[in-house]
Amino acid sequence: MVMHMTITVAVAGASGYAGGEALRILADHPEVEVGALTAHSNAGAALGTHQPHIRALADRVLLPTTVENLLGHDVVVLALPHGASAEIAAQLPDDVLVIDLGADHRLTDPDAWTQFYGTEHAGAWPYGLPELLLAPTDGTGTLTKQREHLVGARRIAVPGCNVTAVTLGLQPGVSAGLVDTDDLVAVLAVGYSGAGKSLKPHLLASEGLGSAQPYAVGGTHRHVPEVEQNLVAAGAGSVRLSFTPVLVPMSRGILATATGRLTAPGTTLEEVRRAWEQAYDGEPFVELLPEGQWPTTAMTVGANTALVQVAVDRRAGRVVTVTALDNLVKGTAGAAVQSMNIALGLPQTLGLTTGGVAP
Amino acid sequence: MVMHMTITVAVAGASGYAGGEALRILADHPEVEVGALTAHSNAGAALGTHQPHIRALADRVLLPTTVENLLGHDVVVLALPHGASAEIAAQLPDDVLVIDLGADHRLTDPDAWTQFYGTEHAGAWPYGLPELLLAPTDGTGTLTKQREHLVGARRIAVPGCNVTAVTLGLQPGVSAGLVDTDDLVAVLAVGYSGAGKSLKPHLLASEGLGSAQPYAVGGTHRHVPEVEQNLVAAGAGSVRLSFTPVLVPMSRGILATATGRLTAPGTTLEEVRRAWEQAYDGEPFVELLPEGQWPTTAMTVGANTALVQVAVDRRAGRVVTVTALDNLVKGTAGAAVQSMNIALGLPQTLGLTTGGVAP
Amino acid sequence: MVMHMTITVAVAGASGYAGGEALRILADHPEVEVGALTAHSNAGAALGTHQPHIRALADRVLLPTTVENLLGHDVVVLALPHGASAEIAAQLPDDVLVIDLGADHRLTDPDAWTQFYGTEHAGAWPYGLPELLLAPTDGTGTLTKQREHLVGARRIAVPGCNVTAVTLGLQPGVSAGLVDTDDLVAVLAVGYSGAGKSLKPHLLASEGLGSAQPYAVGGTHRHVPEVEQNLVAAGAGSVRLSFTPVLVPMSRGILATATGRLTAPGTTLEEVRRAWEQAYDGEPFVELLPEGQWPTTAMTVGANTALVQVAVDRRAGRVVTVTALDNLVKGTAGAAVQSMNIALGLPQTLGLTTGGVAP
Amino acid sequence: MVMHMTITVAVAGASGYAGGEALRILADHPEVEVGALTAHSNAGAALGTHQPHIRALADRVLLPTTVENLLGHDVVVLALPHGASAEIAAQLPDDVLVIDLGADHRLTDPDAWTQFYGTEHAGAWPYGLPELLLAPTDGTGTLTKQREHLVGARRIAVPGCNVTAVTLGLQPGVSAGLVDTDDLVAVLAVGYSGAGKSLKPHLLASEGLGSAQPYAVGGTHRHVPEVEQNLVAAGAGSVRLSFTPVLVPMSRGILATATGRLTAPGTTLEEVRRAWEQAYDGEPFVELLPEGQWPTTAMTVGANTALVQVAVDRRAGRVVTVTALDNLVKGTAGAAVQSMNIALGLPQTLGLTTGGVAP
Repeated sequence: MVMHMTITVAVAGASGYAGGEALRILADHPEVEVGALTAHSNAGAALGTHQPHIRALADRVLLPTTVENLLGHDVVVLALPHGASAEIAAQLPDDVLVIDLGADHRLTDPDAWTQFYGTEHAGAWPYGLPELLLAPTDGTGTLTKQREHLVGARRIAVPGCNVTAVTLGLQPGVSAGLVDTDDLVAVLAVGYSGAGKSLKPHLLASEGLGSAQPYAVGGTHRHVPEVEQNLVAAGAGSVRLSFTPVLVPMSRGILATATGRLTAPGTTLEEVRRAWEQAYDGEPFVELLPEGQWPTTAMTVGANTALVQVAVDRRAGRVVTVTALDNLVKGTAGAAVQSMNIALGLPQTLGLTTGGVAP
Repeated sequence: MVMHMTITVAVAGASGYAGGEALRILADHPEVEVGALTAHSNAGAALGTHQPHIRALADRVLLPTTVENLLGHDVVVLALPHGASAEIAAQLPDDVLVIDLGADHRLTDPDAWTQFYGTEHAGAWPYGLPELLLAPTDGTGTLTKQREHLVGARRIAVPGCNVTAVTLGLQPGVSAGLVDTDDLVAVLAVGYSGAGKSLKPHLLASEGLGSAQPYAVGGTHRHVPEVEQNLVAAGAGSVRLSFTPVLVPMSRGILATATGRLTAPGTTLEEVRRAWEQAYDGEPFVELLPEGQWPTTAMTVGANTALVQVAVDRRAGRVVTVTALDNLVKGTAGAAVQSMNIALGLPQTLGLTTGGVAP
Repeated sequence: MVMHMTITVAVAGASGYAGGEALRILADHPEVEVGALTAHSNAGAALGTHQPHIRALADRVLLPTTVENLLGHDVVVLALPHGASAEIAAQLPDDVLVIDLGADHRLTDPDAWTQFYGTEHAGAWPYGLPELLLAPTDGTGTLTKQREHLVGARRIAVPGCNVTAVTLGLQPGVSAGLVDTDDLVAVLAVGYSGAGKSLKPHLLASEGLGSAQPYAVGGTHRHVPEVEQNLVAAGAGSVRLSFTPVLVPMSRGILATATGRLTAPGTTLEEVRRAWEQAYDGEPFVELLPEGQWPTTAMTVGANTALVQVAVDRRAGRVVTVTALDNLVKGTAGAAVQSMNIALGLPQTLGLTTGGVAP
Repeated sequence: MVMHMTITVAVAGASGYAGGEALRILADHPEVEVGALTAHSNAGAALGTHQPHIRALADRVLLPTTVENLLGHDVVVLALPHGASAEIAAQLPDDVLVIDLGADHRLTDPDAWTQFYGTEHAGAWPYGLPELLLAPTDGTGTLTKQREHLVGARRIAVPGCNVTAVTLGLQPGVSAGLVDTDDLVAVLAVGYSGAGKSLKPHLLASEGLGSAQPYAVGGTHRHVPEVEQNLVAAGAGSVRLSFTPVLVPMSRGILATATGRLTAPGTTLEEVRRAWEQAYDGEPFVELLPEGQWPTTAMTVGANTALVQVAVDRRAGRVVTVTALDNLVKGTAGAAVQSMNIALGLPQTLGLTTGGVAP
């Protein structure tokens, strides 16, 4: 592909939350020209009917999701139901950048995929978490980051939003050998957009307002093998993670509290902070907050940031990490655009902001 | 004290959330006559100015919180700042039932009190959690419950709301020896009324709406020694608990996710459910939900219930418990009234409901 | 019907919000024994699956909604879709008290019914708003209230929730001739439970959280003819009402701002307050708040109250009224139980509270 | 002032919501370099302590609000308490663009100012609502817009947020002579950030969550004379407006329902829509939505848009308009930046988006 000044991007699954968030960001991206927008059952409708908040694209007509409609673009973003992306991607040229917002290409282990998703593995694509720490595997001892593998990539799998939050919270301790990974516990307060536009009773406003609702309790959550995969990449031997998401009354946001036992009981907070600071030094989007300042999801709404804080619970012998991010931005579409920028050789932060829409 | 048909109750600290909730419940209690309502800086105002939702008592004038104003009642409920209740209680007759909604008399260990609250220990009163399991200490092997110690009591310390949630979630497994207590992790989604009427910036609606905010992260939370005390009473040897509360956009409610490692890896879900069912068999207010049904705080709003669910995370080797309750009811004032009923020999459920105000 | 100590009550449509709220209140009503609970598509399920907040009735099995299942009760509460209640009621004995929570029997004018609901009129039943002011029609000049018509009634139509709010707010001024009814404007902030358990995209938590959504704008709302009917009953000649409901992020509650022009520009606030005070003097559930205190829906959550406040906007020449109530209680099921108490000769307030669950 | 490629901007009152929102937008404005940030009691603190969502400026130290600290910038944005801006502005050079986010310079009529704000009038500055319609006053009959008066301006007063919403909703009908202005009624659902960071009990999350709270009822609201001023500018003779704001559980947003009587009863919806379409034809930020699509505040969160819809209530003889906007963006800081762009000859939309952060 020849680098054009303007990058044409098509979005398949443009009427859902993930596709919509990709459009919201891409519509304001200085180098992007939004191309075809496709949908399944909503094909034929104007985008404004389904994404009325994106005024700039309100008059676009949704086309059917077919390979024909997706061809001819530099980038294709797929926000499709499980199992649908592999087939479409297989028919797109190798030099087109295809970004999957769904789960199909996240896991490297086919058995883990089948166990948790119940279908045949579609293969793994380069993982869209540039800040993922990669423990040295070649004896050199040099820590690298996933970013390197995204440069020039033409297939990218965007991580699960909950996974990104837990990974970014824990990985520095794992990488630095400060945190035991055989008994990790994570509990996440999550916003309702993470559940998509599913019409299910418990997702109604009348049910969610003024309430906290747990779901997928007991290890069955599909994000567990993905977190485990990331922490192993960061240097963990084996990983055992107890993971509980709780829906709380906000439309966006993930606040992930993730704890792991200290490998050495006497580890100080300073040592812990140093490991997290080193892990994220120079990172534009992931940041360890100043000591004493705790992240809130409001700080990250609409921004591509993940804000992290750590504490040492001396009494419990654990490191407690808290990570706040916007599930639709750094958790989904922001990660996609950030990875796209890297893959295409654009400035990594182009079209993305670190300013959250708060209060 | 001679048992009267009507029980006169005074409430000190009637303009705050805890005192107000006590009044809301007591105003509809068939055997109670609400007596003096006292306050500190709000003395002189009509109750309706500060508790406009309690129409039946709107015209009551708040009196200053003095021993004189509290004398002459069968029951005195104290909803006062830390350190204030001991002094007042010392001047009330021994046969008056004094119920402390605050923390002053919850802990039995003076050192734990001083370490976490920074002041001198006021002594421990009978603990207002009737369902608390008490491991046999006399060699008989018979499990008892805290309820027995509330019968005829004339001093009662109501537990901390977060403590009640975590205790009720974990104690059956502790008592049955199924759960290791040396590495417990609890993360709680909590509503804003738990923070009281404090005028602090992070407690503003503009800050809390649409956001999740962690606080007291890292083991410093005052509820930790109280949970530990309860689990030791239920049979634990040593207890180590990592505890993180997260404020989420609801005015009431606690959803506590508390996990502990299985003592025996092969423990089945059935064995675990049996232990929880036995612990709460016949309890009017604490219930293990049917398998597959997860508690939400909405189910408990305004009711004196604590709804519990358990899962076994085989992969992580942990039991995961979720408990939902209303922080102001079973977490505070409902527990007070329930304990009062027991202490005075009234039907335990009088004036209390198990019907949550949902949706 | 012979008055029994215990009143048996059946509820048809027990899995929806209106039926559920009736059950929540009836489960704690001292004179009521809850009988058959019926449903349509949910028949066969345990009530606890659909109304998990009503622990006392969780094990009840939902029966199919048939006349057979509803016979044999003193009272039958119908919470059914439009058009379904007339047919069932016709087959129930005349001495059974049938209470319709739906719209079918609210309007007296068949043409208004057909115009707004599009079906054939099912006839009007005694209207379940005891506080409704009835202008004298017999030349005596004595104002009466709808309560009189509920004594001994055996058919009751519960008002629309929005209608109750607007009616209670405006009627005293209409009755006293202080407010012109030819140009009324009402805008209501309403909670999501008012829309029922419909699975519609705009009713999802992800859509409703953090947003305000207007609906039924422009006079098409079905509550308009009902408000007009009530104000005519209160003494209005002709009524023209602009009515706009706006969904806001709360699960329960209606805050109705309703304004009408002053008939006499010099009318003082004192005169206005007097008219409202007189209208509600002695009423247990409807109250004009003290001057300067404005109603909030939180004050009424879970209670059968409607709290009203008035102001005179001298500059605009209008009376502005604000009414807060809980759409499911005074707006639906509380009104039903209050009317039931009146019809059966029980104390009007039995089983109902004036204490809102706040904060 | 010579036009620089980069515009230096100072913000006074940088720790409040209005100043913070100005910073959030300016931090990403391609032509702006953020200069001095000043505060009163928070001087000396890092901005990140008070505006933790604006990562790009987190390390900036807040300076005291003095003229010295504000000099040397091309633009000075004032987000100060009432009465403070005039004094500071008087000491800034005439060629510095000073933008007041507060109320001091909004009203042209000194008597109206004194009546509603209680202090001496500070004088009126060019009004920062570019889309404000200006009825011809010179007999030419040509309608102009306020935008013209902002070109080259060096003093700008940003409108009140509620005023912008009501003005944009009603002015097209006023300008086209379709709407009577002698009996306007507006009721607004507003988010809590509109009340600022005031530490007042009713603004606590525990009070606001799950509730709707009216305030400033009865014509006393300071926004009334400002709406009247705008509608007179748009062509109204006299204006009478009943205005009621209601706080609802969202952090941002205004949904304004504003109605006025039709001057001619037979006016069709098509005629009405045509007037609104003409008023906003070509406007980048104000838009009449397609027929049948109603604005929600979620559509505008974080964007500089105002979305409008109209309906004709034939029965009530009124036009009903609904306008949604973000109180901090189009209602405050977005309006400031838009006006700044116009004043400095930059593309009007620079640094501003029309994409709302939804869901």
